[in-house]
Amino acid sequence: MAVTADSYAPTERTVPTRARERAAYDKELVHAILDEGYLCHLGFVRDGAPVVLPTLYARIGERLYVHGSTGSRPLRAAGQAGPGLPVCVTVTHVDGLVLARSAMHHSLNYRSVVVHGTARPLTDQSEKARVLDALVDHVVPGRAADVRPANAKELAATAVLVLDLHEVSAKVRDGGPNDDPEDLSLPHWSGVLPVATSYGAPVPADDLDVSVPVPGYLTAYARR
Amino acid sequence: MAVTADSYAPTERTVPTRARERAAYDKELVHAILDEGYLCHLGFVRDGAPVVLPTLYARIGERLYVHGSTGSRPLRAAGQAGPGLPVCVTVTHVDGLVLARSAMHHSLNYRSVVVHGTARPLTDQSEKARVLDALVDHVVPGRAADVRPANAKELAATAVLVLDLHEVSAKVRDGGPNDDPEDLSLPHWSGVLPVATSYGAPVPADDLDVSVPVPGYLTAYARR
Repeated sequence: MAVTADSYAPTERTVPTRARERAAYDKELVHAILDEGYLCHLGFVRDGAPVVLPTLYARIGERLYVHGSTGSRPLRAAGQAGPGLPVCVTVTHVDGLVLARSAMHHSLNYRSVVVHGTARPLTDQSEKARVLDALVDHVVPGRAADVRPANAKELAATAVLVLDLHEVSAKVRDGGPNDDPEDLSLPHWSGVLPVATSYGAPVPADDLDVSVPVPGYLTAYARR
Repeated sequence: MAVTADSYAPTERTVPTRARERAAYDKELVHAILDEGYLCHLGFVRDGAPVVLPTLYARIGERLYVHGSTGSRPLRAAGQAGPGLPVCVTVTHVDGLVLARSAMHHSLNYRSVVVHGTARPLTDQSEKARVLDALVDHVVPGRAADVRPANAKELAATAVLVLDLHEVSAKVRDGGPNDDPEDLSLPHWSGVLPVATSYGAPVPADDLDVSVPVPGYLTAYARR
């Protein structure tokens, strides 16, 4: 596969050992998968053992920012390790349950991105403030302009890890089931049950004044 | 906290360094979170670096079974490592976007389970066949009885890792925003945007005979 400015260079660990046809390195695809989500699973090694924690993230250009508290384990580990913290950040969207005639060919339709790299904590407070705004706006576009901004004490208690998008791959499975030809005449239903993330009507806080209207960025909320 | 037969014993790595009030070890809660999902993020260490991959799982009693191909990296690693593969399996459900008056108190409502342990590949073929049926039925209850079962060749190409539920914790954040008292009079909307996983109408495979009806376990599909 040709590597261009539009794609990430495959590496030994971003080329899967199986289902290689599902792997992709196209930047536009990777960005779209990352931007649709906001929850990643952050993996790191602690005392030689793997740890995987859910956390919020946002992408800006070719950097991924991962949110945390200064007291949390990955952030403390990243701060202590001089050269940064080796991490793996994975984002997955499930699009469908794939039902084949045979048990074996059951599958999921999904889109995932796996990022390998070394995470470093942001230390510059004004950069951290900008990134926290970007995190709020990544989860709810338009929200960062409609909040009380973080003050210096709050900023100091928040930690953000930054990671370059360099060693990155996407994996996509879509379409219907791939049944074996000899199974096609079996009497079992086959196809896909679509799966999506849905957003309900906004629920006001108990202490919210009834005169405060629901903002437009919530009534029109959508991620794709 | 009292440890009883109804809860997992907290360990150094299952007690969070922050937001301890959100951590829980109750088996019933852990089982409910695990059983609602089917996609986990499996973390393991390869050449000293973390790897996090999405994969399917099912719980049976106090064991977690993780699906894979015999050719995939974690499964090969588990087969090669004599004492098993140290893993961390994390399952997360997002329930809401929490909007506070201040940027700092924005949050997610979520339920997650983190399982630490050592995974081993199932080697007994009849046990593997039972577990694969359980995996199919975990994703689509009722489906395993309505498929062509796996044959010996298919079973041999499939790998399943098993992991004891022993070092386990849940984490739950729910309810509205926790604004600071001095922020309550600010004019910003606050509350929760509910998030859920939704399932659409079944889409038949292109090659499905039109006389095959949609099975009842799909028309009534629900996970909670």
